[in-house]
Amino acid sequence: MAYSYQRLDKDDVTVLMIDHQAGLLSLVRDFGPDEFKNNVMALADIAEFFDLPTILTTSFEDGPNGPLVPELKAKFPDAPYIARPGQINAWDNEEFVQAVKETGRKQLLIAGVVTDVCVAFPALAAREAGYEVFVVTDASGTFNTTVRDAAWDRMSQAGVQLMNWFSVAGELHRDWRNDIEGFGGILANHLPHYSNLIQSRDATLKN
Amino acid sequence: MAYSYQRLDKDDVTVLMIDHQAGLLSLVRDFGPDEFKNNVMALADIAEFFDLPTILTTSFEDGPNGPLVPELKAKFPDAPYIARPGQINAWDNEEFVQAVKETGRKQLLIAGVVTDVCVAFPALAAREAGYEVFVVTDASGTFNTTVRDAAWDRMSQAGVQLMNWFSVAGELHRDWRNDIEGFGGILANHLPHYSNLIQSRDATLKN
Amino acid sequence: MAYSYQRLDKDDVTVLMIDHQAGLLSLVRDFGPDEFKNNVMALADIAEFFDLPTILTTSFEDGPNGPLVPELKAKFPDAPYIARPGQINAWDNEEFVQAVKETGRKQLLIAGVVTDVCVAFPALAAREAGYEVFVVTDASGTFNTTVRDAAWDRMSQAGVQLMNWFSVAGELHRDWRNDIEGFGGILANHLPHYSNLIQSRDATLKN
Amino acid sequence: MAYSYQRLDKDDVTVLMIDHQAGLLSLVRDFGPDEFKNNVMALADIAEFFDLPTILTTSFEDGPNGPLVPELKAKFPDAPYIARPGQINAWDNEEFVQAVKETGRKQLLIAGVVTDVCVAFPALAAREAGYEVFVVTDASGTFNTTVRDAAWDRMSQAGVQLMNWFSVAGELHRDWRNDIEGFGGILANHLPHYSNLIQSRDATLKN
Amino acid sequence: MAYSYQRLDKDDVTVLMIDHQAGLLSLVRDFGPDEFKNNVMALADIAEFFDLPTILTTSFEDGPNGPLVPELKAKFPDAPYIARPGQINAWDNEEFVQAVKETGRKQLLIAGVVTDVCVAFPALAAREAGYEVFVVTDASGTFNTTVRDAAWDRMSQAGVQLMNWFSVAGELHRDWRNDIEGFGGILANHLPHYSNLIQSRDATLKN
Amino acid sequence: MAYSYQRLDKDDVTVLMIDHQAGLLSLVRDFGPDEFKNNVMALADIAEFFDLPTILTTSFEDGPNGPLVPELKAKFPDAPYIARPGQINAWDNEEFVQAVKETGRKQLLIAGVVTDVCVAFPALAAREAGYEVFVVTDASGTFNTTVRDAAWDRMSQAGVQLMNWFSVAGELHRDWRNDIEGFGGILANHLPHYSNLIQSRDATLKN
Amino acid sequence: MAYSYQRLDKDDVTVLMIDHQAGLLSLVRDFGPDEFKNNVMALADIAEFFDLPTILTTSFEDGPNGPLVPELKAKFPDAPYIARPGQINAWDNEEFVQAVKETGRKQLLIAGVVTDVCVAFPALAAREAGYEVFVVTDASGTFNTTVRDAAWDRMSQAGVQLMNWFSVAGELHRDWRNDIEGFGGILANHLPHYSNLIQSRDATLKN
Amino acid sequence: MAYSYQRLDKDDVTVLMIDHQAGLLSLVRDFGPDEFKNNVMALADIAEFFDLPTILTTSFEDGPNGPLVPELKAKFPDAPYIARPGQINAWDNEEFVQAVKETGRKQLLIAGVVTDVCVAFPALAAREAGYEVFVVTDASGTFNTTVRDAAWDRMSQAGVQLMNWFSVAGELHRDWRNDIEGFGGILANHLPHYSNLIQSRDATLKN
Repeated sequence: MAYSYQRLDKDDVTVLMIDHQAGLLSLVRDFGPDEFKNNVMALADIAEFFDLPTILTTSFEDGPNGPLVPELKAKFPDAPYIARPGQINAWDNEEFVQAVKETGRKQLLIAGVVTDVCVAFPALAAREAGYEVFVVTDASGTFNTTVRDAAWDRMSQAGVQLMNWFSVAGELHRDWRNDIEGFGGILANHLPHYSNLIQSRDATLKN
Repeated sequence: MAYSYQRLDKDDVTVLMIDHQAGLLSLVRDFGPDEFKNNVMALADIAEFFDLPTILTTSFEDGPNGPLVPELKAKFPDAPYIARPGQINAWDNEEFVQAVKETGRKQLLIAGVVTDVCVAFPALAAREAGYEVFVVTDASGTFNTTVRDAAWDRMSQAGVQLMNWFSVAGELHRDWRNDIEGFGGILANHLPHYSNLIQSRDATLKN
Repeated sequence: MAYSYQRLDKDDVTVLMIDHQAGLLSLVRDFGPDEFKNNVMALADIAEFFDLPTILTTSFEDGPNGPLVPELKAKFPDAPYIARPGQINAWDNEEFVQAVKETGRKQLLIAGVVTDVCVAFPALAAREAGYEVFVVTDASGTFNTTVRDAAWDRMSQAGVQLMNWFSVAGELHRDWRNDIEGFGGILANHLPHYSNLIQSRDATLKN
Repeated sequence: MAYSYQRLDKDDVTVLMIDHQAGLLSLVRDFGPDEFKNNVMALADIAEFFDLPTILTTSFEDGPNGPLVPELKAKFPDAPYIARPGQINAWDNEEFVQAVKETGRKQLLIAGVVTDVCVAFPALAAREAGYEVFVVTDASGTFNTTVRDAAWDRMSQAGVQLMNWFSVAGELHRDWRNDIEGFGGILANHLPHYSNLIQSRDATLKN
Repeated sequence: MAYSYQRLDKDDVTVLMIDHQAGLLSLVRDFGPDEFKNNVMALADIAEFFDLPTILTTSFEDGPNGPLVPELKAKFPDAPYIARPGQINAWDNEEFVQAVKETGRKQLLIAGVVTDVCVAFPALAAREAGYEVFVVTDASGTFNTTVRDAAWDRMSQAGVQLMNWFSVAGELHRDWRNDIEGFGGILANHLPHYSNLIQSRDATLKN
Repeated sequence: MAYSYQRLDKDDVTVLMIDHQAGLLSLVRDFGPDEFKNNVMALADIAEFFDLPTILTTSFEDGPNGPLVPELKAKFPDAPYIARPGQINAWDNEEFVQAVKETGRKQLLIAGVVTDVCVAFPALAAREAGYEVFVVTDASGTFNTTVRDAAWDRMSQAGVQLMNWFSVAGELHRDWRNDIEGFGGILANHLPHYSNLIQSRDATLKN
Repeated sequence: MAYSYQRLDKDDVTVLMIDHQAGLLSLVRDFGPDEFKNNVMALADIAEFFDLPTILTTSFEDGPNGPLVPELKAKFPDAPYIARPGQINAWDNEEFVQAVKETGRKQLLIAGVVTDVCVAFPALAAREAGYEVFVVTDASGTFNTTVRDAAWDRMSQAGVQLMNWFSVAGELHRDWRNDIEGFGGILANHLPHYSNLIQSRDATLKN
Repeated sequence: MAYSYQRLDKDDVTVLMIDHQAGLLSLVRDFGPDEFKNNVMALADIAEFFDLPTILTTSFEDGPNGPLVPELKAKFPDAPYIARPGQINAWDNEEFVQAVKETGRKQLLIAGVVTDVCVAFPALAAREAGYEVFVVTDASGTFNTTVRDAAWDRMSQAGVQLMNWFSVAGELHRDWRNDIEGFGGILANHLPHYSNLIQSRDATLKN
């Protein structure tokens, strides 16, 4: 059966950051807190680096779910920001879907909290709407790994592709020569061991 | 290939609670006992909250499998209750299948003990009968995670969708505004950390 | 070397519940949330059942640490309740130490959040003050198991005895005949599998 | 898409026990040794109980792979026993394939050591030959869980169904009333906790 | 500081099997069920092989705790069997302590369910009474590994020595030549991989 | 649905070793370092033993990614060696694709570091180009098992088959009699426990 | 036996940061990379906040061990910095011991890489020299948790106290009122979930 | 209490390699097979490098326990080699104890299989005999980590010090300058990631 490689294309990707809110984050337990914060900010840096249209959305900010984490707000001051009045599935919010449509792009990179709801529901709805959907699994969190495994399976069977921030970065960048410094900087900032490699090499070069 | 999002619809869902019996529960070891009890009762609260038709069934109650846990009996006093005389697969019991048919609904939410038998067999049979089948994975338990992984794979390959009680709740409710207090109450009762968020917020509001 | 068994004596025990606050609880990740909530309330039920003097304390309630969880407040309405204005180690608060002294008892049962600070510091201070100190390890939580292991080791080397709520209950009760119903009720409420045993037995007796 | 439930039928199943040899067993590390021995013998008891045609095969018995474990030899004294002279994939041995064909059955239950080779290769070959193939995952072992996960995925994608000995027993038996004593005996012998339930119940009945 | 090796001596050891009851066993979750059953029976075989005085005791047999597992009863038909009327700590039962004293031995090998109560309490009491105490950790079970770790620490700090059934067997036997067949038989029956080694060797010797 | 077993054929396989570089290897944490080194060298020995065309490639060798590990360079002195000037996906390098084409073979065995990028990207591209693609999962490493699971799923859904070095060896060799000594040597060198079996057998034969 | 609580005193503590070098860090695998980096920098921030004398040392910087990580160098520009020419145990370096002595303090907080060598050796030597020694376990890393457990045990038995950065911070600060903002800032910067609590609270206060 | 640092001294250490036999090794499951083989050979290389007196011993070589692994025999051709006729505890063999005494050294480094018997028994006996005893934990293996934890605790409480091969190497070598090449060679051969650091550095130096 013929297979067609749906490959991330920086000119055809939109990033959806869904419900990374201070309250909801306290529910995330399939990642350690330091690791998860790093993963989310790595994805944000990637979106900025490749100048990808990015859409922010939250649910019920003024209840226990809490405000969007300030680092994301600061990173994307001009991004569409849809504070949903009640819809659990962001795709049920017309303003959100409209913002996606207006980017004119067919590939969606989705990350959010929690994976089984805030990520899975719009991912499945976007699949039905004909989009190529990629979930950034390590910038999305939920209650525990059992819940995560079930959510991944449901999405995967629906044709959603499971990626991680590092593979997203690599698939978008394609060639180191496009910008060695910039791309290396993202790795150094978010992969402590890659940073160590650079430091060891620089020290050796100086000697 | 066109994908159609089979989305839980509270007007088209029936809940099947299969063999949550005191004896069989002692075999469940892929969840901690406190967590599993909480998950099962969360699903029961969801069924009640959304007024979903619910069918209870047990196998061999008066043998070592033991009685249905009393909390479920108490929660659904008027639900069809089929104490199967011997059929291992509930779908082999005509009365059970008839009860399902009489709901006139095409989406089945299944939970039970043990996952690989009491859940998987009727799930596969219901798939063959044309139903949309959703298994509530964290309200279903079995011997260990290795057995669970195999059972999940068999069901998933048959088109069964793997969910968890929280995503079931969210997909049914769709919009917080439909009933903020009621829905929030389920979360507060079954997610201790969500309850903590509410308490912290309430305390801050009082100050 | 002669060994003397320091055995919990219900007439010589005081219970210290330290900083079980809604905000701090979101930091606890060495236990699942359902399990931890169950453990804390089991200890509270034990304190009530044996009529043990119980002292509640919190740190900085009106900041991010949040309020004492309401279930504890409700359970011990007449207990000394020391909202510490700033001391991290409860033993640095004179009112708290005074409350302990006034019980006239020499055995302290300590539980709290987080284990490495709010439990360990007063436990070590109480050891220095000559008390027999018992930490209820599963009603005390912290960031992860690595932190917990180090905290347990520090306390154990200082002569603190590590227990769990179930062994505390058993060591205090000593003989089932002292109150079969009451003691069995605590087990049934906090050990789902013990409850299952009771239900299976009752069902068999009825047949 | 229409789904058809391929359900184990005791009149249409053949069991293939592949390379459970004393030497190869020392390589199995995805199960504890007691658990694995119990699982293999449970499957053997099931084959005997349902009088399923069973085929034994080994590879290179007189080398380091070692002899077939004696319990299996003793259990199936009249079963076809193909000591393969060199073929790694049992399906490459004509005598073996012929023995399978002669059963005239279309459902194959496969267990063996190691999962990724001795189970996966004949499972894939049998799929190509048109059989319905079911792997008994917990009576099949390999080097570690990473290897197992990859082997399961390869087989699952080829249409092999992943089961465990308990679900095999249940799907074959279908109704407790077919033989309560016999079926209960298998459970009691291979599920210590089910045996405990029986003992507790019997003791209560005596009182 | 001088250290004296307290070494198990088959002429100075008494075995205490405490509360291995059908109901209580369903609470044990720090070992898999097959592994735990094997461990308990291995210890029983060791006691029989070395002809060690063995004392059986249970707590509340006719309640939910259930009857002593029949394999132990059958193995030690003439052993003192103290069905305690209510004492949680077996050492609080005078008949039990008397039975221990009558053996005239100073080394106690203790196993039981659950570790933190039924094992730990008499172990600490026996230490105070001057016995050398050895707990057979893998024939003793409890709710989870966190509870186990705390119980082990409490006992270890009290001078209790933590062993496992295999090291108990080796320390008692001292020299293979004392009875190669008998000792090898225990290993073969309870260590599947040791049995495999024997089978592989025998097969090679036959060739 | 008809299933066709894509079986590794030593006359139709090419091996691609991608980016096993000293720097990148420090990022691999889903395998222990000893195990991973052993797996990679086992695959290299297999390629050599079956005389499979092998292609080496690296990315940015003179930056922090570091040089190809010397053992691989030494093992394949005459293999095509493509030091990619910048392409992250090896399939974007024309020289690499050309080298693959020139082997005239349609089955690709891919291993590399890191799995989610250096393995997954060319694997998906090769699937689109019509190759049968097999990933050697245990000779491919990445940041952690969560990232690995997502990458495996993406590849598996694209028709890539997940194997491990041992199953690759078995599927290629097909029959022990093709070269008992040579094949046994690979196992003995890379499976310490298989080596132990050989040593025990040899010792027995000598006695 | 009388117990004396050795309590960290900010006027009596010296911090020793040992061998946090870019090369050695690649060996650390008992912590995830993001978590470990966070822990080390948290300890550094604590040292700075409490103005603790801090001593940096490295071993063989210009070999594969690599340079001190630049963040530490930047944080303590005026700290004694002893690049040891060869001594593995920093305490064998006279200049280092002299720097410790010159602080005139008797409590040593030690963190380093790897735990079993660079931390354990000077910790034991310092114990012999009469210091009170505290190891910051989560700012110290090594090959795996098995190695760590052994190293912790060796140190603990020698009277070294095992702590974590958070308990160090709490024991030094003693009272929130000493500097709420400063202390809260350290927590917010290094505990993402504590930061979330602050954000949720601030958002509520604004509403 | 005064503490004295018992520090390994290459002029005062004897190495005891106990029962690393091909059959017994198949029982070791607390380490992966590649990792364990590497650890044992690392310790052997250390003994050779520092020219430490080394004593080999085995138990029942011509039974299922199997022969000493050939790599150890080859490494120490002139070492005392005591094939014990039956004693389980090597210290019960007079020839063995005599060989130890003849080294005239007071520090014993012990490694063996299995940890709880072949290591623990002579370790405790040697402690009683007045030796300083150090167990190389990662070159010693047993059935599982639960058994290991109990054995470690028993030995630690007896004053045995728990080390790992890397810390042994470091404590013996003391100063890199004593032999940079030789010591670095051991690290490179047994720590793949240290080897990677060297390769990356060498590559950088060449550029």
